[in-house]
Formats: sequence, structure tokens, C-alpha cells
Amino acid sequence: MGAYEIDEWALVKTSLDPEGIGSEESLFTVASGGLGLRGDHEEGDPSFHRGTYLNGFFEQETINYGEIAYGYAENHQTMLNVPDAKLFRLELDGHPFSLKLARIDRYERRLDFRSGELVRMVTFTLASGAVAELETRRLASFARPLVASFRWSLRLTEGCAEVSVFTGIDGGPRNLTAADDPRVGAKFSERPLIPTRLEVAEDGGLVEARTRRSGLAMACAARIRAWRTGVARTEGERGTTMKLGDSFFCVRRASLSAGEELVLEKAVAYRWGLAGDEGRDLAVEAVAAADSASEAGYSALTAEQRRELDSFWRDADLFVDGSAEIRQALRFNLFHVFQAAGRDGRTSLCAKGLTGEGYQGHYFWDTEIYACPIFTYTRPDLARSLLAYRHSILDAARERARVMSQRGALFPWRTIDGRETSAYYPAGTAQYHIDADIAYAVQKYLAASGDGAFAEKEAAEIAVETARLWAGLGRYGEDGLFRIHCVTGPDEYSALVDDNAYTNLMARNNLRWAACLVDSLPQAARESLGSAVGLRDEEIEGWRRAAGAMAVPFDPVTGIHPQDDGFMNRPDWDFAGTPREKYPLLLHFHPLVIYRHRVLKQPDLVLAEFLLSAEFSRAQKIRDFRFYEPRTTGDSSLSHCIQSVMAAEIGDHGKAYDYFLKTVRMDLDDVHGNARDGLHLAAMAGSWISAVYGFAGFRDYDGRFSFDPRLPDDWKGLSFRLAVGGGRLGVELSRDEVRYSFEVDRKETRGSLTLFHRDTEFSLAPGKHRVFSLKRQLRAVLFDLDGVITDTARLHYLAWKAEVDALGLKFDEKLNERLKGVSREASLGIILEANGLEMTASERIAIARRKNERYVASLDVLTERDVLSGVRELLAGLRVHGVSAVLTSASKNAPRILERLGLSKEFELVVDPSSIVKGKPDPELFLRGAELAGAYRLDCVGIEDAQAGIDAIRAAGMAAVGVCGEGGPELIGAHRSVKSLNELTVEHLERLLESIR
Amino acid sequence: MGAYEIDEWALVKTSLDPEGIGSEESLFTVASGGLGLRGDHEEGDPSFHRGTYLNGFFEQETINYGEIAYGYAENHQTMLNVPDAKLFRLELDGHPFSLKLARIDRYERRLDFRSGELVRMVTFTLASGAVAELETRRLASFARPLVASFRWSLRLTEGCAEVSVFTGIDGGPRNLTAADDPRVGAKFSERPLIPTRLEVAEDGGLVEARTRRSGLAMACAARIRAWRTGVARTEGERGTTMKLGDSFFCVRRASLSAGEELVLEKAVAYRWGLAGDEGRDLAVEAVAAADSASEAGYSALTAEQRRELDSFWRDADLFVDGSAEIRQALRFNLFHVFQAAGRDGRTSLCAKGLTGEGYQGHYFWDTEIYACPIFTYTRPDLARSLLAYRHSILDAARERARVMSQRGALFPWRTIDGRETSAYYPAGTAQYHIDADIAYAVQKYLAASGDGAFAEKEAAEIAVETARLWAGLGRYGEDGLFRIHCVTGPDEYSALVDDNAYTNLMARNNLRWAACLVDSLPQAARESLGSAVGLRDEEIEGWRRAAGAMAVPFDPVTGIHPQDDGFMNRPDWDFAGTPREKYPLLLHFHPLVIYRHRVLKQPDLVLAEFLLSAEFSRAQKIRDFRFYEPRTTGDSSLSHCIQSVMAAEIGDHGKAYDYFLKTVRMDLDDVHGNARDGLHLAAMAGSWISAVYGFAGFRDYDGRFSFDPRLPDDWKGLSFRLAVGGGRLGVELSRDEVRYSFEVDRKETRGSLTLFHRDTEFSLAPGKHRVFSLKRQLRAVLFDLDGVITDTARLHYLAWKAEVDALGLKFDEKLNERLKGVSREASLGIILEANGLEMTASERIAIARRKNERYVASLDVLTERDVLSGVRELLAGLRVHGVSAVLTSASKNAPRILERLGLSKEFELVVDPSSIVKGKPDPELFLRGAELAGAYRLDCVGIEDAQAGIDAIRAAGMAAVGVCGEGGPELIGAHRSVKSLNELTVEHLERLLESIR
Repeated sequence: MGAYEIDEWALVKTSLDPEGIGSEESLFTVASGGLGLRGDHEEGDPSFHRGTYLNGFFEQETINYGEIAYGYAENHQTMLNVPDAKLFRLELDGHPFSLKLARIDRYERRLDFRSGELVRMVTFTLASGAVAELETRRLASFARPLVASFRWSLRLTEGCAEVSVFTGIDGGPRNLTAADDPRVGAKFSERPLIPTRLEVAEDGGLVEARTRRSGLAMACAARIRAWRTGVARTEGERGTTMKLGDSFFCVRRASLSAGEELVLEKAVAYRWGLAGDEGRDLAVEAVAAADSASEAGYSALTAEQRRELDSFWRDADLFVDGSAEIRQALRFNLFHVFQAAGRDGRTSLCAKGLTGEGYQGHYFWDTEIYACPIFTYTRPDLARSLLAYRHSILDAARERARVMSQRGALFPWRTIDGRETSAYYPAGTAQYHIDADIAYAVQKYLAASGDGAFAEKEAAEIAVETARLWAGLGRYGEDGLFRIHCVTGPDEYSALVDDNAYTNLMARNNLRWAACLVDSLPQAARESLGSAVGLRDEEIEGWRRAAGAMAVPFDPVTGIHPQDDGFMNRPDWDFAGTPREKYPLLLHFHPLVIYRHRVLKQPDLVLAEFLLSAEFSRAQKIRDFRFYEPRTTGDSSLSHCIQSVMAAEIGDHGKAYDYFLKTVRMDLDDVHGNARDGLHLAAMAGSWISAVYGFAGFRDYDGRFSFDPRLPDDWKGLSFRLAVGGGRLGVELSRDEVRYSFEVDRKETRGSLTLFHRDTEFSLAPGKHRVFSLKRQLRAVLFDLDGVITDTARLHYLAWKAEVDALGLKFDEKLNERLKGVSREASLGIILEANGLEMTASERIAIARRKNERYVASLDVLTERDVLSGVRELLAGLRVHGVSAVLTSASKNAPRILERLGLSKEFELVVDPSSIVKGKPDPELFLRGAELAGAYRLDCVGIEDAQAGIDAIRAAGMAAVGVCGEGGPELIGAHRSVKSLNELTVEHLERLLESIR
Repeated sequence: MGAYEIDEWALVKTSLDPEGIGSEESLFTVASGGLGLRGDHEEGDPSFHRGTYLNGFFEQETINYGEIAYGYAENHQTMLNVPDAKLFRLELDGHPFSLKLARIDRYERRLDFRSGELVRMVTFTLASGAVAELETRRLASFARPLVASFRWSLRLTEGCAEVSVFTGIDGGPRNLTAADDPRVGAKFSERPLIPTRLEVAEDGGLVEARTRRSGLAMACAARIRAWRTGVARTEGERGTTMKLGDSFFCVRRASLSAGEELVLEKAVAYRWGLAGDEGRDLAVEAVAAADSASEAGYSALTAEQRRELDSFWRDADLFVDGSAEIRQALRFNLFHVFQAAGRDGRTSLCAKGLTGEGYQGHYFWDTEIYACPIFTYTRPDLARSLLAYRHSILDAARERARVMSQRGALFPWRTIDGRETSAYYPAGTAQYHIDADIAYAVQKYLAASGDGAFAEKEAAEIAVETARLWAGLGRYGEDGLFRIHCVTGPDEYSALVDDNAYTNLMARNNLRWAACLVDSLPQAARESLGSAVGLRDEEIEGWRRAAGAMAVPFDPVTGIHPQDDGFMNRPDWDFAGTPREKYPLLLHFHPLVIYRHRVLKQPDLVLAEFLLSAEFSRAQKIRDFRFYEPRTTGDSSLSHCIQSVMAAEIGDHGKAYDYFLKTVRMDLDDVHGNARDGLHLAAMAGSWISAVYGFAGFRDYDGRFSFDPRLPDDWKGLSFRLAVGGGRLGVELSRDEVRYSFEVDRKETRGSLTLFHRDTEFSLAPGKHRVFSLKRQLRAVLFDLDGVITDTARLHYLAWKAEVDALGLKFDEKLNERLKGVSREASLGIILEANGLEMTASERIAIARRKNERYVASLDVLTERDVLSGVRELLAGLRVHGVSAVLTSASKNAPRILERLGLSKEFELVVDPSSIVKGKPDPELFLRGAELAGAYRLDCVGIEDAQAGIDAIRAAGMAAVGVCGEGGPELIGAHRSVKSLNELTVEHLERLLESIR
């Protein structure tokens, strides 16, 4: 954990590191969803950037375009750094205290995940030889909106000293100014926040200000109490309060001797709203809130805070058995995600939370796709609040759609107040997918929570307006497919493409869901919706039709889904020629250069396959993951968690864990080098996604809850709870089994919860649990044909030889070796390539047909005597043990051969190779075999004599037995190698499975 | 000609029109390539925007991007409005003279194309009853760089008056500020031109200034002389000279009586260069030039100017016999193009010339593609100078290529000093085609001029660096094609596309030309080039390979070249639903909305087919023109002239003339409503292109000069001269013939000129001429088969009927009618569509094959008796007259049928329908027939019985005879209809041809 101590419930640092202070300030942020205080030192030094933020409080400024065009976003919006209440300056014997200069004996900072406090303890020795202990505490209250509380104390343990402490409100903070990195920096031409009022009293004061252009106003009131302890508890010597520019400071002075302590408590309340709103007096509200907090006192607020957090952790904690470091990192992330979420239905979750100014405090799709799942399943009230924010900006989204010549609503790609503020539309407004992302989050929230009231009003309106957007945006092509042109998907390294697969898939989901939701509404709600949004039945039919005809790019050659229509035509990026320091690419290459290549910032097709899990076969996911992974830079912090989840799903456990480590430690290790600008909230949320969806294999597609657990190798267990079905579903994973339990808070009558463990459906009544074993058990054996059951290889060779000779081409045994396990068409491709020859498709078809005719004719020589030794015995054994025998041959002649061999009845299933997209080494044939046999893939053994077959078995996650024959080449990756099936019994296969992790 | 008088050699206006004053100021500009003076009134009122410009003199300012990224252009560049010498303020009896307030008796302004002067005469009556004649004259000298001369006189014809006149240099002009239209408006945050010196003398003064950021300085000196005439010529009363802010004014006063005249002459000289260039004293240079011009006097400068223009018109005049209006408009355009071209090899031709501030005085591809042809063929010295400018910025283009991760040189899309200044890269830097455009202009210049010195140095370097750009930018796809990804073509309504056809075609030309040029260099030049640019032989091989493999999108369904790879997938723009006021689209729709549709700002594929004329068949050009034209908005002023040329080429003479009128009158009629911001120089040049390439059918592909004249209906003739082969080629077109002559200036030994009239090659020795008739002469008759030669229609019907019945589908005589003249595959498509059925390609192939087998089998019943009446007689007649008989049937069975009919020997040619891309109604079959017969298309008659056939014949430009049979449907568009060929003789056909224009 780098520079931080391992503590399961806190982030702790015991050394002062001025170099890394920027990221530390972000990491040590305390925030309450509405108010965020960066973890800057009270004395102000060392510091990278002191920050205090109010979620949703921003200034705007006209965007200057080099060349403007119709419909461009009009204004920048920037979350403002507001007046700072964190400052406590200390003077000792007339000298300012500085961490950098002082003789420090002990230093510790601790962000406590259960109390929500940032606590610092510093012991230091004065020039006089006196020794002092400084303790500072702060919290941003969850219970009291926009209230922060501070406790500051200085105790002398040796000697004595004259002590002065200054604290108040610093009205001077500014936002960081623009740098070369487009991701950070404010764009103000003038000071954005104009002070309008400054009042002080003996024990505090009030600051008011308004924004220059965005029409907002704010107030901040502080109340300070001070006292001395030691001999006897007394009030501190009364100090003075003074104005200084736009700031004020209260000064408290004391002469302290050993054993004596000077304590200050400060309660601060912020309020903000529309400037000129006659219905509110922000100053009065702020003063009242500060007074109330001050009267309650710091320790009372800590107790309130602890209650909030106890409740949060009860529902949200992810317990990893096996690594305290990981537990700490996961909790750190969850704590920050919890701190960042807006709670008032009018604010959302900034890309950097309230920890810094990166991305200007804007809300993106991050909220819906990365953060909402956590809240939906741990704090549904907060999920609802975040989604209610989207409903609150629906009118702005409708207006944006109108400007963009569309119907319905187009949500802004980035915004604070609901208006588009992306100044680069190819990676901004062009990301129409945000509409579908929001719809998706609403859909998931409704499925988990069953929140009928939200469904009937907010959700239904969002559903209708987003569906309208898609129905109007796309067009039916001449092939009858519904196509969406000129958009940008989540992967911003391709822009303005046609039929971005992610966008189209998510739009399809959006359209279908909207139609279902509207149809499912009670009559009254349906009518009320109809009058609110003017809905016609034909419209809904149109949505269904568009969804049914939605174009999804597919490349038959590779069997993958191209990211967009033109993707496969583009050349690959020259990764080998790109040195490390040229990443992220966006900072070192012109967009044209990036867009022109197959290179990904994040794999959006893979993301779609996670979000819309059940719409894709496992084989498809494996192909796609393997295709996109080497082409993904990971320049986006959003990519790692998705890569982790999908690596886990396809059975690449090493990669799953590596990507998990990147996302779970992203800011702790400052992987992207920019934690100082704020934390990567979506990536932090991603660590929860990675654990729950990745390692526990949770899927919630279309309201169907399923698990397919796969614990990382060095974890003993993983436990968590999910809010579903009106209660809490407990999931406890160990290496060998998984336990599902269902609890409801109150003794009301609750229905049972329907779940799936792998493909097994089961129900859990409230208070009940169910345990499933995770051990492998032999359920099916999948056999290759040629070289395993019989030897037709010679017949193939002779048929090819005759055909190829007739063409006057080269063909020999060595070339023949490369054809093993390969389809007819692919074999011909290999032969032609070896001969440096090209042919038209029709020529190829003719040759393959002739070769097959020769081969099929030669099959008639096969008899029962041609069954290889050991085959009949093994098949008989499988039958006795009730284990399925499945033939997974690439040969289209397999049924005919089995018949000739007299084995037709010995096989429960023969997989038809023409039913699959890609042959070996693609795992599809084996996965299809297991699926047809109803056997879980890990409970299967595959037997093969060719490398392509072994590769396919391994890719399918099955145990692989290689049949090498006498002196045949070694088969790499086989779990066991045999010369013939004589060497195998059912017991051998059972033991083989048990031995594999 | 709207508000202007018709005068063949001048633009004349006799009324004052304060509303239209902006466009008038642009139209009345006088300029010399280096210095431009807008046509603003001397008194300053009424005025839209007074302007004085120095070509290449600009200020820069950092481009503010809403969101910046790597490699974006850094600075705006703006041609500056420099201190104004045009101002003459007049006071009469103490009252300022104003055109708006004065009692005007006569008003005339005249821009004289032969003297280059702007002359104004105003007669007005004073309050006192006195009558005065004001005459002002100005010119921007071609002979004296950056010198302007003014003559101002006031004569009293009645009464008397106290006259004061003020003139000097107004140091205060500013550029127009930014508006909402991205095409105009400067972006200065501070005053860009800082006065550094102001000196006055009794008879003139000097202004110096420097730019704030671009590092340039300028000086402007004026010398004023004044005198009175009338009784006796005397010097005017000595006046005073005064400084006023950054300006100075000389004042001259006189008491004038009837018959007396006050005259002022002012000579002004500008100089500019790098600020701090110790080698130059701009002030001294300017003063010397002004003194020299002043000493020579206004009339001497007029004489110089007239000599320059006489020479220009001798070479460049386009004489249209038939319309004085058109003559005036063409000369007006040529005059302005001549005025606009930079002449020093360091400046080019601004998009608006020096007539206004639109496009900020930037140079675009307009220069090379639209203006250079004029100069290449009329003033090669100016063409060389414009191309030398591109060579002068080659280093900047190399640096730009480096930033864009490319090799070679990438010329800026828009620039003044050579650095990219396009602030919107999707319609800026992404237009890589500018490299090929420049190469193309150089190639054409070399072919026409034979300028060996330029070829060896400047041209060769440009060739190498542009070819390198393309070789590095493209990639070989898996299909072996060389593809260029993520670029924008000239049509800016599609952006960031793959394989833009224009770009790829022009890049291919660029690569081939560069390889040829380098290979053709003399050894010494080749070595010197090699050391200058480090050229390797493999590189040149690479260019040839890339050119040979260049991808050019083609759509087999429509037979057209899609503008780019994805173009055919996009939906058409809703033209019907777009009201007039929503054009130009770019001002009313977001780029995403425009890019998403098939809608063109200008037809770039059609442009490529013009520029690379010989690479496309006529049929291809017809298809493409017809496909793109209805999808083209013409929002770009560059589109009309190209549409005109290509409409002329494909034989649509009405459209050719309509588009010509749009381009020739664009600014005179203020078609785009923005002539006030400057004239559309490329469109003006386009009127020459339209006449020479369009109506005279000139083509100069790859150094081969050819003509295919087609005069507009209301013109009697067209004459012009082209500079080629070291002399002047004269072309004189009348309605019936064309005369080509070749003259050389000096009696040096010149070789003959090789030319093509249509497809006829011929040579012209110096001093010789050659005349060709343009009348139609019968050369070939093209026959359809079914229904014209014999009646197999019944056999087809029966074969289809049997096949379709077997499928259980509907088929009847009515449906059969639609199959006439239609190919087998297309016929099946029609049948399936009528039955609402879809089939796979292989099913279709099988059915079509079976139908054909049935049909072919049934052909055996045909005999010689089945030849329709009149056929043999007509064929015999054709043979006698030496006219080719060609069979142009869509039937693949035609040869077999002819054989059965005993007609095989009667036909000179049978066109193989499988050799063409598109069947009837596409003209390809007929054009191919004419081509094979060696007959010019206008000399052919086609005979058809189906509407699709008649349409095809008409599209081919041939005379069409329709065979209607008894009571058959009327064939629309046939020039003559017959019941059978009995009615036709060769003489009939000859007369038919003669009767058709």
C-alpha cells in the first residue's frame, strides 16, 4: 500500500511527503455528498491545492471556440473552490508553526472509514525545548447538510510556550488554472465568485458571495469555541476577530505550560441557491446551521457520523478473506464513493467526487454505469437520488435534443446544471450513448428495488424521452437494419463512427425496456404519463420495431463484433513502436492519428457484453475479449474494472486479478499520476464491480439475478450483501462453496427471492439460506473424432492429396499436419497460402466440395474395426457413471462416420459444426457441447489429438486430455497426455478434474 | 446585370444604393496582387467597411479552444486592414459634403477593366445654387509594387464656392469583428497594429506600424500635389498638414468660380517586412516609391497600368459571341482574379482576394484548383509565382507533417505564412487532399509550360514531400488495397471518413506523378534533389505500389463511386423537409446532424472526375453526376462551376448553362448574400473553367490536350487563347465548327503542338490552323434485339412464366412489361419484389439460371423468318453507306439468336452485356457500342422498343428511334417513333441526326 500503513478501517500515513502532497490531499478528503473538504493541512503548508467544494455550485463562462458552429455547447461550467474554513494557523513563541520547518517527533494522519473523521497528530519540539502535541480533527457531516465540524487542540507535554491560533473563513480560494491537459483547469477570465457580505462576531463570522455569471449565491457561517484544559477546564482567553480582505480570522492566545491544552472547536455551515431567490435567506440558514452544530459540539457530530457509517458498512462492506491490504483498499474506495454521491435529487456524483477540480466537477455517465450499481445494491435511497437528478434535468435534455434536430431528450455528455458543457463534440455530444446509460441505470434500479412510485413517474418519463431519441436518431438502411450514424461510443479513441456496437446495443436495450415499462404501467399511471409526454401507441410499436432491427456489427472472418462499422478496415496501432512516455496517447498524438487506427482507450464492446450479459454467448465474449484486449491502451481509468470482470467471466483469472489490482489501487498508487486533481471515483466504484460482478460472477441482466463465482487464487473468501427483493441477499464465498442467504429488516410478509447459481435456479425465502459446492465434478466428456475415436486422418490426407495434385500444387505430410482439427474451408486456405496462391470464393467452394466428395466416398471403407483401442471401454464406463459422452468434431461427416463405426448410440450428443460461428481453436464447439449436455463447463473434460483442439478446450475452461499417439508431437496445455484411450478410465478423469483449480 | 450597367469592359453603376454598399465596395475593389483597395467612397459615407489590404501582411492571435488537444493549430492569422489612403473629405462653403445629403444630379462609378481604374463622377448642386462636378480616380499599380495612385478633382460649372479638401493617411482602420458566421470576423483581443511613427511634411507624410504578435512591420508614405485649373493652371493654394491621433491630413483650400477646378493627385506606397529586419528600411523604401510615383504623375501610372492590362487581355480574354452581359461578367471575373494573385513568390491568392476580410485573407486549395488553371494557360509567370509560394512554405509543411505523425510535408488547410491556422480540424487539417491539389496544379503547370528549371527544383521537392505524405498516411488493408483513413474530402458536409474517393484518387495521381517526375529528371537534378530531400529508390517504388493498390470506393448496386467508404450506408438528407431559410445547412444544423446524412456541400467525387478526366468512362461520369447532383446543396460557392463543367460533359446542356450563370454572376447578383465580406474568387475563376473546360470541352489530363466543344444554345461563338507548347493556342468556336490555331511570339524554332479534337489526334505547327466541323453525321446505328430485330419477348415471357409458376408465385403480362430491356438478374428482382419475397443470392442465381436454360432451349425454334420486317433492308442500307451496325442488347444470348436469325454477319459489332457495369436505362451499353465502333456518340442513332432503352440512348446523347409496334405504349423521349423498321431508311436517320441540336 505504498506510503500508507495497512489498517483495515482507515487510511493512515505516518510520514510527511511534500512531493506527494497533492495526491494526499485528494485521498484524505472528507465529504458528505454535498460538501467536500480536501485533505489539506490546517496550517496551509505544505500544500498543492487547498480545496472546498459544494456539489452543484458552479460558475459558467462562455466557451471560446477557434471556429464555432451551430449547436455547440455555449458555456463552460466549473465547480467553484469556495471560501475555506479548514485553515488554522498556529504561532508558538511568536514564530509561525510550519510542518516543513518544525522538529517533528511524531506525525500521523488517519482517515477513519467508520467515524468519517480525518485526524492528524503531530508531536514536535520547540526551539525552547518545549514539546507539543497537536491534534486536528474534521468531518463533513452526513446528518447535517453542508455542515463541517473541526476540532483543533494543542497540548504541551514539556516546557511552556506562548500560543496563538488563527482560524476563520478564508474568502480567497481560487480554482486551479488551465494547464495543457484538457482534463483539468478552470477557464475563468475574471474572478468567478464575488464577495457580497462579510460579517464578524467575537466567536465567528459570515461570508456571502455570488457567482459572476451562473446566477448562484452562497453563504458560509462559522462559529468558534475555544477553551483551555489542564489544571482546570476553563474558557480560553477571549481573543479578537478581524476582517482581512474577503476573509475573517478569530485569534485565540494562551500561555501554556506542560500538561495544559488549548482546544478550538469550529462548526461551519454552507448554504447555496439561486441568487435573488426571495424565498430563502442563505445567511440566516447558514448561521442557524452553524449555531446548531456548534451547540451540539464536535463529539456529538462524530457520534452522528459514526451512526451513518455503521449503517452504510452493514449494507455495503465487502469482506475479503485473505488480504488486509485489499480489504483496506476496497473500503477506502467504497468510503469515497459513499462520500461523493449527491443526496438531494438535484446533484449527482462528479467524476472526481468532491476531492479535486479535475473534469471541473462535471457529471458524466460514470455515475450511472460505474457508481449506481453500488448504490442500487447497498443504498437504494442514494441510487434513487442520483437518478432523480437526471429527471430534474429532463427539460434541459429535451431542449438539447431540439437543438440537435432530434426528438425526445438528449442528456448532456458532461454538465453540472443539465446543459451540455462539452466543448469538443466529437468526444462530447456525439456520445449519445449517455441516454441509454441513464436508462440502463434506471432499469437496474427498478429491477432491484421494485420502486413503483419512481417507475410510474420519473423512470417512465426518462424511458419515453430516451427511447424517442433513439427512434429518431437511427434510420432503416436498405437492408432493413436500423442504423445509428455518426456517433462516438465510450471508447473516445474512435470518433464519429457509424453503428458503434455499444451505442446500438444499449439503444436497443433502452428501446425495449421503455416499451416494456410503459406497457407495464397501471392504467392511471399510463394516462398520466401520456398527458405528461404526449405518448402514442404507434410510437411504442416503433421502438420495438427499431430494437428488433437494430444493426450490430459482426465480422464473419474473425467472429468478433467490430466496435463500429468501419473498425475492421482500419490498421492496427503500432504498439511496438510507441514508447511508454507517449501514453496516454491523447496527450501525444493528434486526434486524427488516433482515430485512424484500431486502438482503444477503453473496450466499449466488451463493456456492452458485460452490461447486456445474456445477449452474448460465452464463446462470443471470449473471442471479443481476446480481440480487444491487446488493442486497448487503458488510457481511460474506466477500462480496468471492466477488463477485470470480463477476464473473470471468460476464465482468465490471472488477468482478472491483475486488472482488479489496477482499479482497486488506482489512486493509492497514483497509477495515472494525476490523483492530485482528484480521485477516479468511477474506478473506485469499479473495484466493487470487479469483486461483485467479477469474482462473485453476479449478473443482473433484465432483472434476473445470477452468480457464477470464481475466487482469486490468493483469497480464501469473499462476503457481501445486496439489497434486492425488499431485503438483503447475503453472499458468502469460500474456496469450496458459496452460501446465499436472504434477510428482511422487518417481519413483514416478503416473498421469496428467485436466484440462479450458475444455471441452477432456486428460491430463498426470508431468513433462509442455500449452499452450493464449487468443486468440479465430472459431468460430460467431449471427444474429438479424427485421431481420438478413429483415424480418418489418412483418408483426409489422401483426399486432399488427390485434389491438390490435380491442381498441380505442392502438398505433403508436413503441410497436412497443419490441417488437423481445422475446417475444410480453413484447410484449403492453409494449402493455398502455402502455395502462394489466391482463388475466388467460388473456386474455393468447388475445390472444397470435390475434396469432400473424394473423402466421403473413401469413408465407406471404415468398419467397426477402425474404432481406436480403449474408446468403447471408456464410453461404456461413462455410461455406467451417468457421465455424458459428447462428440465435438469439426467434421461435417461425423454422424456418417459414427454410423460406419457402429458408435452412433454410444454418444449422447453430436454437436453440429455448422451451428457454430468459429471452429477450433475457438472454444465455441466445446462450449456448445457442454451447454447441450447441460453440464457446467468446469465439470467437463475434452479429449483431443490436435493442438487447435487442446487450445479450444482450455479456452472453454475445461480439463484437457491430449492423445499423442506413438511419437506424436507434444500437445501444449493438455492437463494430461495419453498415447491412447486405453490409458483412461472414468476414475482417472474424475481425479484429473479434482486436481485442477 | 442587376443594378449595374452593361458595358463590355467596365462595371458601371449610375445610382447610389446605400443598402448594397457593402457588396459594391467589394466589387469595385482595385488591387495589384500585393495591395488591395476596397471600393469605398472617398468621403467615407455611405460605407459598410473601408478596407486596404497588403497580401501576406497579417496579425496572429492564439486560438482559444473550448477543449484543446495535441497538435491543434496554434494561432489565428488575420490579414490586417492597414492605414487608409483613400480618404478625401470635402467641405463646400463650410459644410461637409455627403453623398447621402447632397442634391445629386448625376452619379456614376466605373471600374474599367482595361485601364484598371476606378473612376467616379458626381455632379451635384450646392445650397448656393452652384453646380459642381466631382471626379475621383484611383488605381493600384501592377507595375509598381504596393503603390496606389489617386486623382481627385472638383470643378464648378455654375456659381462659386469655398472649397476645402482633406486627405492623408487614416491610421485608424480596424478589421471587422467576429460575428456568428464562422466564415468572417477577426479574433483580436487587442488592437493588432501598433503605430510606431508618424511624420508629416507640407505635401505628405509617413506612417509606420508593427503588429503586436506576428513580428511584422509596415510603412506607408503619401505624397500629395494640388493645383487649380480654369483661367490658368497654377499650383493650388498651399495648405497645411496636421496630425490627428495616428493619422495625418493635408488640407487644401480654394475659392472656385464657374469653370475653375481644384485637382489633387496623391501617390501612396506601402512596404512591409519582418519587424527588426536590419537589412531594410521600410520607411525609406516607401517614401522613395511614393516620391517616384508622384513625380511620374497619375496619368503616367494609368498608361503603365493600361499596358499591363492590354497584355493581360490579349492572352486571357474570353470572347463570347452572343451576349454582352456574359462578356462583361466573364471579364469582370477575370479582371478580379488577375488583380488578386500574389506576384512575389511569397504570397498567394486569398479566398476573397484583396476585396474583403472574409476567411481572414487565408490561402486555401482554391488557389491551386480554381485559380491556377487560368494563370497556367494565360499568365504562366503568375502561375509559377503562386506555386513558388507553396515551395516557400515547404519547411512549415514538413514540420506540420511531423506534428501529425507523418512523413513528408503536410500543407496547411488554411494559412497566410505557411503554418496551419484552421481552428476546426475536421474541416481543416483533416483535408489532407490539399497536398494532392498543390501537386496537381504543379503537374499541370509543368505540362503546359515545360518549365524545366521549376521542375527540377521547386516542383521536384514538392512532388517528393507530398508523395511521402500519402505513402505514410495510407495503409494496406487485408484485401491488399491501399487505404487512407479518417480524412475529410473537399465536401465538408462529410467529415473524418475512410477512403474519401476524391482524396484517394488525387493521392494516386500525386504518387504516380511524383514517381514519373523524379524518374524523368536529368542526372544532375536527380542527385541534387536526392541530397536536398534524402530520396531513396525504394521510396519511389513504394509510391508506385501504393498508387497501384489505391482503394477507390465503388458500389456495384448503383454503379457509382460512393464519396467514401461509409457513404452508401448513410440515409439521405430530408431535402423536402428543409425550408429555404435553413440553407446554408452549416449555419442551421449541428455538424453531427449534417455528417450523418448523404448531403453534399460540394460534389467532390464529381470534381475528381473532372480533374482526372481520363480515368473514368463517360457512363461512369453520367451515373455519378446524376447520383450526386440531387444530393448537393451548393452551399459551397465552389460547386457551381464544377457542376457546370460536368453537366456539359455528360450532355446536360441546360444544367451546364444554369450552373454557369450561377458561378459567372455569383457576386454581381450577390447569390450568397455575403459579397460585402469579399468576392468569391474561386467561383469567379470558375466561370473561366466553366467556359473553357465546360463549353469548349478542354481537357488537359496528364499533359494530353483535348477539346470536345458544346456551345450553349444562345451563344453564337466562343474564342480564347491558351498558353501551351511555348506559344498560344487559339480556339474559336462557332455553332458549326471549331478552329484551332497555334502562334508563337518569337520566330524561334518551335515544335508542333499535338492536340485532340474529340478523339481525333492532330498536330498544329506554329502559324498554322485547323478547322473541324461540329455537325452531326451518321456513323453508327445501335440496335436493340428483342422487339427491334426479332420478337423473343414471347419466349422470355413463357420462360419466366414457367419458372415463376413452378415457384408458386404471381406473374402476368403486366409484370412482364416491366422486364423489357432489363437484365435477367434485375428481372428476377422485379418479380420477387412484386411478390414481396426475398431470396438469398444463391437461390436467385439458381432461378435465373433455370429460366435462362428454358429460354435458351426455346430459342431453337427461331429461324430466319423470325427477323422483323424492314430489318434486313435497313442493315443493307447501312452497309452501303458505310455506317456501322451495332447490336446493343442486354441479352447474353444475343450472338446465339443472331446466328439462328442468320444475321451474324450483318452486324459489325455485338456489345457483350457482361462487359458493362450497369444495364439500361444506364447509357453504358450504348456508349460502349459507339466506342467500339469508333463513332462519336453524337453521330450515333439508337433504336429501341423499351422505355429503359430510349432513356439509355438519350442519356448517351444519341438520337433515339422508338419502335412502338402496333398500339404499343408511347416511348417518351424518342426523337422519332416508328411502328416497324420498314418505315426507316438510312436517309431518314441522316436527316434525323441533322435535325437534332
